[in-house]
Amino acid sequence: MSAGESLRKVRERKPLVHQITNYVVMNETANATLALGALPVMAHAREEVEEMAGIASALVLNIGTLSPAWVDAMLAAGAAANARDLPVVLDPVGAGATRYRTDTAKRILDAVDVTVVRGNAGEVATLVGADAEVRGVESIDTGADAAELAREAARTLGVVASVTGPVDHVSDGETVVAIANGHPLLASITGTGCMSSALTGCFLAVADTPFAGAVEALVAFGVAGEDAARVAHGPGSFHVALYDALAALDPETLDARAKLA
Amino acid sequence: MSAGESLRKVRERKPLVHQITNYVVMNETANATLALGALPVMAHAREEVEEMAGIASALVLNIGTLSPAWVDAMLAAGAAANARDLPVVLDPVGAGATRYRTDTAKRILDAVDVTVVRGNAGEVATLVGADAEVRGVESIDTGADAAELAREAARTLGVVASVTGPVDHVSDGETVVAIANGHPLLASITGTGCMSSALTGCFLAVADTPFAGAVEALVAFGVAGEDAARVAHGPGSFHVALYDALAALDPETLDARAKLA
Amino acid sequence: MSAGESLRKVRERKPLVHQITNYVVMNETANATLALGALPVMAHAREEVEEMAGIASALVLNIGTLSPAWVDAMLAAGAAANARDLPVVLDPVGAGATRYRTDTAKRILDAVDVTVVRGNAGEVATLVGADAEVRGVESIDTGADAAELAREAARTLGVVASVTGPVDHVSDGETVVAIANGHPLLASITGTGCMSSALTGCFLAVADTPFAGAVEALVAFGVAGEDAARVAHGPGSFHVALYDALAALDPETLDARAKLA
Repeated sequence: MSAGESLRKVRERKPLVHQITNYVVMNETANATLALGALPVMAHAREEVEEMAGIASALVLNIGTLSPAWVDAMLAAGAAANARDLPVVLDPVGAGATRYRTDTAKRILDAVDVTVVRGNAGEVATLVGADAEVRGVESIDTGADAAELAREAARTLGVVASVTGPVDHVSDGETVVAIANGHPLLASITGTGCMSSALTGCFLAVADTPFAGAVEALVAFGVAGEDAARVAHGPGSFHVALYDALAALDPETLDARAKLA
Repeated sequence: MSAGESLRKVRERKPLVHQITNYVVMNETANATLALGALPVMAHAREEVEEMAGIASALVLNIGTLSPAWVDAMLAAGAAANARDLPVVLDPVGAGATRYRTDTAKRILDAVDVTVVRGNAGEVATLVGADAEVRGVESIDTGADAAELAREAARTLGVVASVTGPVDHVSDGETVVAIANGHPLLASITGTGCMSSALTGCFLAVADTPFAGAVEALVAFGVAGEDAARVAHGPGSFHVALYDALAALDPETLDARAKLA
Repeated sequence: MSAGESLRKVRERKPLVHQITNYVVMNETANATLALGALPVMAHAREEVEEMAGIASALVLNIGTLSPAWVDAMLAAGAAANARDLPVVLDPVGAGATRYRTDTAKRILDAVDVTVVRGNAGEVATLVGADAEVRGVESIDTGADAAELAREAARTLGVVASVTGPVDHVSDGETVVAIANGHPLLASITGTGCMSSALTGCFLAVADTPFAGAVEALVAFGVAGEDAARVAHGPGSFHVALYDALAALDPETLDARAKLA
């Protein structure tokens, strides 16, 4: 596992990452993908999602502003990605806040072979049936041990679970890695969770294993957050600096800066 | 009425503000909501809007890029909000520009008990049947006295009318307050009107009265605009600085900086 | 042909530019339009596109995140624009990447009298049946001579062809103008192609000829990109500076800065 090595591969290969995501963050996840060095493409029409997934190197499904036609497209794209053994990331935005979101996330997990679920603690807890408090799309408190939650989610859902928060936890059901990179300002703007899912898609396209890719993505994003915070005066300037920092990430020093436990 | 006191309450209580808004500004109004200290959630599917409005502290309906399915969702969310006595803000973006927008704004006003209508002079004049020139989503000239327009709209529509422009006017049908905070750069970027509607939703969730909340929101947004303009070099850097300024608003000094008349 | 003179006219007349564009860049193209000095309006509902096109000075159709209802709206708006002899810009985002995008772009070209097609080399090559490699929405390599491609596209499609890339080429089927303004950072953020299409709409609303307007728009955008790059530290700060630079464009010096060949 080497975040630096994978980042170098992302920049060399420029994988195309097909994203069916929410209206709020489309520009942001596309720009984060570009800043890292990969190529984003947003396409949600039932008429083209299978073909688009067919030329992509990873698929990211994000239910942040879902509606029935979009869910259908996600299922079709997921099937096409599975047929090609493409890595699939699911971001269950707001699962637990409404039944529609919870049910849709579960429906996607049932129908699609999802590689990585990337969510906050409340969303992931909802998917494994644990107690969770989700207010809108924010995880307030799960009362659960985050490491254990990641492990349980990985086992129950048959995925790599990537649970982000002040400290992130990634698990394949056996091992749990904690990633302490990042900065509180990441929680001050909308879409940073969604960006981390998009970047997970980028890393999955090149990483040795899904588990490694999920960890590497959070290391890279967390380090970029630390760099951006250094020049920010608030959430607006942090947001801008985050793209600069992603583009400036140095593959040589990235692994040394990872705060893993 | 105290903008500082209400701002303090927003930051303490972090009210969830459900926004059904347009594609152009979703990221911007979500980030403005977060920067102020509240929690935004965007959800527009007929399948979940009632449940989402059921856990929110305020509802903001914005018709900036409407289509029939979204109008249905707005009506359903409005009914759910009314059933819970939640404050509802209507932003009639582009009313007067096309019949569809005018009719939809009126339809929402007929079906939903709207607390505050926040619009520019052209949009609000359209809703009360006065002469107005609206070009796209810009109010060009209403020829009307803005204070009188606010009062008339409040009376005719049975709402608090919040009419923004170089000087803003808020009326409950009796009193009219003029708010002279703000900066011309606010008109140089898209979505600042929509942001002021979102922030109105945040303040309504905590304010003593809808009238107070509508005034306080415009004071806070105007002061943030003044602070942002001080460091801006044009519309792009102003846009970024606006979020920094919203997050940096000081409850201690906010009321002293209000330019009310 | 004078980019400075047309820019002056844009700022004086503030033409309303109706844009039916993709979810990813709506905020960005609206803000670029405003920063230049024109007025954007986004409206995609079948219920209002004809009326909105009826009050606009130019129409921009962008297929970046299309679906059937949006295609119908584009065709209706295009017909309304044609009936009023309004200039129409088509941005065939991702043509060549999926059949749906290629077919939709061709369908619009068949049904609507398009004034300018603005795309990257891969997209434009797809439309004229040449070999092209398009990955998602990025043009990788067409292997073709860009000047000849622009001329051929203009002739075959009966439009002014505006082919952007490291050097842009605009042709009316006879003349080809190469525009060497711009900066590599323009390729580091999503939506700069879409912005150039939006600005093309702004210039078409005032220019002497569609050919002149298409060239002038790319000169203005390229010069703004050069100015923005001077203060940028990466893609995020470049993006912000681009709006500042568009707003600060000086009509007096613009033509002298054009790098035409």
